[in-house]
Amino acid sequence: MSGADMNASMGPPLRVGIAGLGRLGKRHAEQLAFGTRGASLVSACSPVPAELDWARTELGVGTLHESFDAFVRDPGLDAVVLVTPTSLHADQTIAALEAGKHVFVEKPLALGVEDCERVAAVARRHPGLVAMVGFVRRFDPSYARAQAEIAAGAIGRPFIVRSQTCDQNDPSGFFVKFAPTSGGLFMDCSVHDIDLARWMLGRPKALRVFATGSIAIHEGLRPLGDIDNGIAVVEFEEGRRAVIYASRTFAHGHETQTEIIGTGGKLLVGHGAARDRVVLSDAAGVRHQAVADFFERFGEAFALEMAAFVASCRGDRRSPVDLADAAEATRIGAAITRSLHSGQAESV
Amino acid sequence: MSGADMNASMGPPLRVGIAGLGRLGKRHAEQLAFGTRGASLVSACSPVPAELDWARTELGVGTLHESFDAFVRDPGLDAVVLVTPTSLHADQTIAALEAGKHVFVEKPLALGVEDCERVAAVARRHPGLVAMVGFVRRFDPSYARAQAEIAAGAIGRPFIVRSQTCDQNDPSGFFVKFAPTSGGLFMDCSVHDIDLARWMLGRPKALRVFATGSIAIHEGLRPLGDIDNGIAVVEFEEGRRAVIYASRTFAHGHETQTEIIGTGGKLLVGHGAARDRVVLSDAAGVRHQAVADFFERFGEAFALEMAAFVASCRGDRRSPVDLADAAEATRIGAAITRSLHSGQAESV
Amino acid sequence: MSGADMNASMGPPLRVGIAGLGRLGKRHAEQLAFGTRGASLVSACSPVPAELDWARTELGVGTLHESFDAFVRDPGLDAVVLVTPTSLHADQTIAALEAGKHVFVEKPLALGVEDCERVAAVARRHPGLVAMVGFVRRFDPSYARAQAEIAAGAIGRPFIVRSQTCDQNDPSGFFVKFAPTSGGLFMDCSVHDIDLARWMLGRPKALRVFATGSIAIHEGLRPLGDIDNGIAVVEFEEGRRAVIYASRTFAHGHETQTEIIGTGGKLLVGHGAARDRVVLSDAAGVRHQAVADFFERFGEAFALEMAAFVASCRGDRRSPVDLADAAEATRIGAAITRSLHSGQAESV
Amino acid sequence: MSGADMNASMGPPLRVGIAGLGRLGKRHAEQLAFGTRGASLVSACSPVPAELDWARTELGVGTLHESFDAFVRDPGLDAVVLVTPTSLHADQTIAALEAGKHVFVEKPLALGVEDCERVAAVARRHPGLVAMVGFVRRFDPSYARAQAEIAAGAIGRPFIVRSQTCDQNDPSGFFVKFAPTSGGLFMDCSVHDIDLARWMLGRPKALRVFATGSIAIHEGLRPLGDIDNGIAVVEFEEGRRAVIYASRTFAHGHETQTEIIGTGGKLLVGHGAARDRVVLSDAAGVRHQAVADFFERFGEAFALEMAAFVASCRGDRRSPVDLADAAEATRIGAAITRSLHSGQAESV
Repeated sequence: MSGADMNASMGPPLRVGIAGLGRLGKRHAEQLAFGTRGASLVSACSPVPAELDWARTELGVGTLHESFDAFVRDPGLDAVVLVTPTSLHADQTIAALEAGKHVFVEKPLALGVEDCERVAAVARRHPGLVAMVGFVRRFDPSYARAQAEIAAGAIGRPFIVRSQTCDQNDPSGFFVKFAPTSGGLFMDCSVHDIDLARWMLGRPKALRVFATGSIAIHEGLRPLGDIDNGIAVVEFEEGRRAVIYASRTFAHGHETQTEIIGTGGKLLVGHGAARDRVVLSDAAGVRHQAVADFFERFGEAFALEMAAFVASCRGDRRSPVDLADAAEATRIGAAITRSLHSGQAESV
Repeated sequence: MSGADMNASMGPPLRVGIAGLGRLGKRHAEQLAFGTRGASLVSACSPVPAELDWARTELGVGTLHESFDAFVRDPGLDAVVLVTPTSLHADQTIAALEAGKHVFVEKPLALGVEDCERVAAVARRHPGLVAMVGFVRRFDPSYARAQAEIAAGAIGRPFIVRSQTCDQNDPSGFFVKFAPTSGGLFMDCSVHDIDLARWMLGRPKALRVFATGSIAIHEGLRPLGDIDNGIAVVEFEEGRRAVIYASRTFAHGHETQTEIIGTGGKLLVGHGAARDRVVLSDAAGVRHQAVADFFERFGEAFALEMAAFVASCRGDRRSPVDLADAAEATRIGAAITRSLHSGQAESV
Repeated sequence: MSGADMNASMGPPLRVGIAGLGRLGKRHAEQLAFGTRGASLVSACSPVPAELDWARTELGVGTLHESFDAFVRDPGLDAVVLVTPTSLHADQTIAALEAGKHVFVEKPLALGVEDCERVAAVARRHPGLVAMVGFVRRFDPSYARAQAEIAAGAIGRPFIVRSQTCDQNDPSGFFVKFAPTSGGLFMDCSVHDIDLARWMLGRPKALRVFATGSIAIHEGLRPLGDIDNGIAVVEFEEGRRAVIYASRTFAHGHETQTEIIGTGGKLLVGHGAARDRVVLSDAAGVRHQAVADFFERFGEAFALEMAAFVASCRGDRRSPVDLADAAEATRIGAAITRSLHSGQAESV
Repeated sequence: MSGADMNASMGPPLRVGIAGLGRLGKRHAEQLAFGTRGASLVSACSPVPAELDWARTELGVGTLHESFDAFVRDPGLDAVVLVTPTSLHADQTIAALEAGKHVFVEKPLALGVEDCERVAAVARRHPGLVAMVGFVRRFDPSYARAQAEIAAGAIGRPFIVRSQTCDQNDPSGFFVKFAPTSGGLFMDCSVHDIDLARWMLGRPKALRVFATGSIAIHEGLRPLGDIDNGIAVVEFEEGRRAVIYASRTFAHGHETQTEIIGTGGKLLVGHGAARDRVVLSDAAGVRHQAVADFFERFGEAFALEMAAFVASCRGDRRSPVDLADAAEATRIGAAITRSLHSGQAESV
């Protein structure tokens, strides 16, 4: 499927603007411009002139802004998609809501729980507006089926989740320069796994965490207090547990994998991460390629996510990811990061 | 990826009309309406009023025809997509070319070689028009990668192809009623495998074929001279061989699989046919679901195919499947069908 | 499991002699000397002095013969294992039976049906003696389980078998020098697949065959009328079919694989042929090693086969492979070989 | 392969006695009686008369003891195999060494580090005697190949091991009654994973551990302070880490799996734990069976382990697992168990 929700009813399209046109921003922008039924990408905002140029010439976007303030107040917009740096997410989300726009904001919503709560308070005052956080994995058909199977009782009572987000190593270490503002390995990568663990386990209350990690390759992270491989354990109420692994140094590709273990069986999502359905057998053995990165792995999910946001704004369905989920993922991620630095188990 | 070719240059969209709105026709229509960059679905043709209604209300198609003649002569059309019964393909393709339209026609182009040649003769008189046949598997990323690997020498000289098209059994035997006009199991299903074999082996000349088969479940096929499971062997020049298997009775789902064996290795495309990346381990063992049908298996390929057609019509790339390929697939498929009935090896 | 039948009752061991100490002969000899409960390897026969030497010093075999006649008449033997050239199998089996010995003979029993029948006639006159042919795959736990599943109805009525025996290419082409006496590719390799197809399909009567093939690498086979890659189709009664593939040129290892398709499901035995449970993910992708040859693939089956032979001779169980099966496999294999040369479908 | 080391030189067999004839004891006894070249099982010791009876009638063992003292002092023995309760391992190993016997003792060597050190001190005084601990996984061909690949640099510098030992749930909870003397989940199951992690990572010094766990099914463990699912993290020097998971409640079978992650790639051993090479595709999907338990998974390893012990005793090779390894596994396992109870990270 192209990802567009083919069953959406017709009607005037939702007028969407996008802020942030980096790699992921471009992906969302193309999806809105050409692949999301019921939406029209009418405005873009970026401090980088070349990016605005791209939006105009490649996507035919008519209104371009360097200033976020002007962008967000545009009366010709119904909704905004924020793919800006994490440190801006909370304030921009608040500004958009106060300007009367539906908001899609990339994860994490914020690095601090207080910021999450500030946003939530504003959102409560605008109950007619959608505020959705980009936990894209929930839209991946495999993760969605796994969650549905669990809800249907396929594995009994789920009690352990093991989940990983492992990126292919970038020998240039380019990501090191974003490390200071990303919140560190766990906030940047594991926030997805934390959200999945909560979703699969039925949103139990997190009690304590323990984290450890090390630098396998990228020594440039050391002065920043960050790591390139990390392991975290989350203790939820009622004996539920999550084990989380994040790596920036996998040799063969991107490998996102989640196992949910229940009293009656287990589900494994994503093992092997094959790029396609091709297997080559030659003198080197029997082998397949792995997906290169999360864009390749979650291409369909990105399309479905944007379709879900647009459908929510148009009133066709409820927003599937709410701000409370985002706040809780941030709360747990922050505790894991504290534990990494303290070396001790930490309360959430 | 959503399947649309995101790199296509901008410009006025190609005005496309579609004839035939059965299951596959609807799929193409939706793709053209919402997911194919550079195209606009402006017209639809069907003898079934409800289908035209659907095109208008769900896709917003402005011009609707019950008559193919009126449809194909519409000066507001640049290109037509034909998803009509096989027996109409040749004449409708000719009519479209003579009306000055680019044509995309579903496979097989025709059940007889003479019809294929008639179409080819007309196409030669209209060198500026694209005439493309729907060998959708060539657009599947896995098949495309396999072919590229072979072209790059990954398995040495390819000399055997084993390929299958196996559909999940429909206990209602609904397809039996289409059997009289489909050309039989091999013309309906194996024409894809024949085309793939030729593509992977470098388009060698076919010399002889042998076919056999039987009815495992659907006795209603017997009076029609058709079968529900068939095996064919194709002898190409220079010792190359293809073994083809087609079934309408698989219990677990649709399984399209192709193995290409060379002097230096082999490539396997599609083994296992997993629906998604979910594995369930419980008291029944360790299992995954299979794709249900070719729509599910080749969703991305359908999108890429339509994008390639539109890009060809707009002059952005060469048509990747030409009429000579379609004629040769029909020639081999017809010989296989003769062998099934004669019980002897037959020359192609 | 070590392969020995741990449940056999105690008692004086069966006194076994082995004739033929080539690669497979050595394998059987070691198994009898050290791993088969209830048997004692007391005698060996070979025209090659170095092989007899090996049996004495490495296995401690006490009685050594260069002459088969003397070997087979030794009153100190209860049973003989024949791992000699195919052309000798029939006469040696008869000689052994007439000397009052149980016989295990490697496959194929003979290249001609008449020879098989001669052996069967002698065996009928010695109903108290076991005469077993080495269809080792029946003892492989995976094949055995597949057959048991079919017998239990797991896939409904089985009607198609697809089976292959594919060896890793030996660049030296060493096997070419054995080709003149092996009976050709199909008699040498496919006789296993033919036996499996009959076993899995319930021993239906074979009606006709068609075969084709070519030389991919080993041109030295051409003057011998042999091939290094062959495909055969067998038509059994009641619409049952087998498709057989044999190759001597696989690049990555040995791959024995059999698929049994029924009206209610299908069973696949041996896909992928992984050497062990190790998967390596690195910059070249995700890969595993394949088994190198049939010794590695069927090691456990060789042990279980010898245990079954010894248990049969000791009266603990019935011989699981009888001479009629061997004769039928030869009959079908000979017809396939005729079809390869005639280019036509041939009656069995 | 039958598991016996077929290359061992001949000579008088090693005279072996076995103490303990429970399930695993019987397995070792049969291996020594019928499948281990160069060894002769001449004596058995058990407090259970029925077990001694079994050894005499089924294995033909000549000398039977109810008293361990008499057993271990038998001058007719060269070596003893101890498959007795864990609490007896240390003292019995010391008694055997002082009686001049080679010793194979099942894991764990002891539950306390002091006991391990007592044994090591005695062993140092008998340098001519083999003292080997049953870390059977080191003899599994897949684990052995993985370790060899790492040693050859296949994955660069290994820095993380993720390893699990997960048993199929026994609904009867039979194992609960052994829990009081087993040392708990981590000492009983994870000691294998701890040993593997050290082996794969190059025997780094362990610094700290953290453990958590819960009871998913077997509430009978609660009064004993034990759990049925546990997770542990081990911090080794130089940033190396191990994550260990143990479960007694898997629904589908036994799943032992180990992943070793390095700077240049990763190795996965044992994923999926397929019982055999059979895949069934039917209306329930595509599935295979899992191995039922560690006996089924490690059958070949048990044979190779006993062959290695016998070869060591006969001076043909060095003992592959020394007492220092066993002591270190106990030290780490004990720290993990402390952490489980304290809820805090603990020094090793």
